[in-house]
Amino acid sequence: MLRLAGIVLSKGISKMREIITFQTLQREVLIDITALVKDVVERSEIQNGIVSVYAQGATGAVMIQENWDESVQMDVVNLLRQMIPQGVWLHDAQDGNGDAHLKSGLVGPSETIPLIDGELGLSTWQNIFFCEFDGPRKERRVVCTIVMDE
Amino acid sequence: MLRLAGIVLSKGISKMREIITFQTLQREVLIDITALVKDVVERSEIQNGIVSVYAQGATGAVMIQENWDESVQMDVVNLLRQMIPQGVWLHDAQDGNGDAHLKSGLVGPSETIPLIDGELGLSTWQNIFFCEFDGPRKERRVVCTIVMDE
Amino acid sequence: MLRLAGIVLSKGISKMREIITFQTLQREVLIDITALVKDVVERSEIQNGIVSVYAQGATGAVMIQENWDESVQMDVVNLLRQMIPQGVWLHDAQDGNGDAHLKSGLVGPSETIPLIDGELGLSTWQNIFFCEFDGPRKERRVVCTIVMDE
Repeated sequence: MLRLAGIVLSKGISKMREIITFQTLQREVLIDITALVKDVVERSEIQNGIVSVYAQGATGAVMIQENWDESVQMDVVNLLRQMIPQGVWLHDAQDGNGDAHLKSGLVGPSETIPLIDGELGLSTWQNIFFCEFDGPRKERRVVCTIVMDE
Repeated sequence: MLRLAGIVLSKGISKMREIITFQTLQREVLIDITALVKDVVERSEIQNGIVSVYAQGATGAVMIQENWDESVQMDVVNLLRQMIPQGVWLHDAQDGNGDAHLKSGLVGPSETIPLIDGELGLSTWQNIFFCEFDGPRKERRVVCTIVMDE
Repeated sequence: MLRLAGIVLSKGISKMREIITFQTLQREVLIDITALVKDVVERSEIQNGIVSVYAQGATGAVMIQENWDESVQMDVVNLLRQMIPQGVWLHDAQDGNGDAHLKSGLVGPSETIPLIDGELGLSTWQNIFFCEFDGPRKERRVVCTIVMDE
């Protein structure tokens, strides 16, 4: 699922929430974390409600995207590189990653996905991706919180 | 409310969640689904909490936007066409809709709206739109989940 | 925290929800509302769950972004000005703020942040910003709703 992009460790906190942690190996890459979020949902034993997925770190984000092959993920990286080039931002005077902050802010760190009869309410081709915009990083963290609707 | 853009059918699942289904008639169009989400909220009889609106399908999205007239909706379609042209993406080699996936990923499928005393916490000019980026489609699905805060 | 950008008053509604209100003094500016959201969380006395932050008004938005200095906030304003220029949209024939609606729709009004042991689950450099795209405004409103996960 994660191919060469990262190694994943999952750390439990409570039945309702877990923080997924993993490594990233490239500066800009989308990493499919759907299977990890599914594991959190299964361990929670909650059947219906919502699943909040939140990326910590101001140079990462969460995007729901197609995962039929890797082409869309590369298209996302290329589109954002065109829209938001490196090295031309005020913040680059601080630590040279102004483009990563802008990409992260625009995509956003949070997505809320319905939980239907114990399954993530994604459609066939929708998967959950962590967007790395300033890797490689030894540890990225995504907080998954499950809230029941009953 | 939906003008010529689509025909809408609503299908109930539980008191807390319904999946709105509707047809789209154009490749790219914003469809106002506010009245449909309001109906779901009313049927739930829940007074306070949050309403999670989630578009299934990796070529659609949800955007909160002004609905005073149709101009903003057309501006959204035109802006995204300029930012993300058709036919120049890696994914186009697969099924020719790379631009639709990119638009959907950037806008995002989920919005979470407060529920205040039985009413959606939208401001006067905010409405909820489904963004179609790869229509026409016989059936689009938006999952509405209501979570109480008490 | 809010520097010269605005004056903030917070108005309580219930233990689970408050509407933050504040003034904005510029047309386009990012205003750090993290401390205000933290106050709402503390007053709620809820320890774990999610915090839904929602900007009312179709010319404002909510962005999670770095707050080490003001450079990233200015970069966000500048990027969006480049991507979405003023005065070239259909909606400008109505009230001249088409760019503000497009910026707001793309950034989005809602973010959902985990609540972990009484603290917002932001990372060190992540803060919550209200994005003003059509100021100055006497009153902007952000609805904060806290939902327990247990």
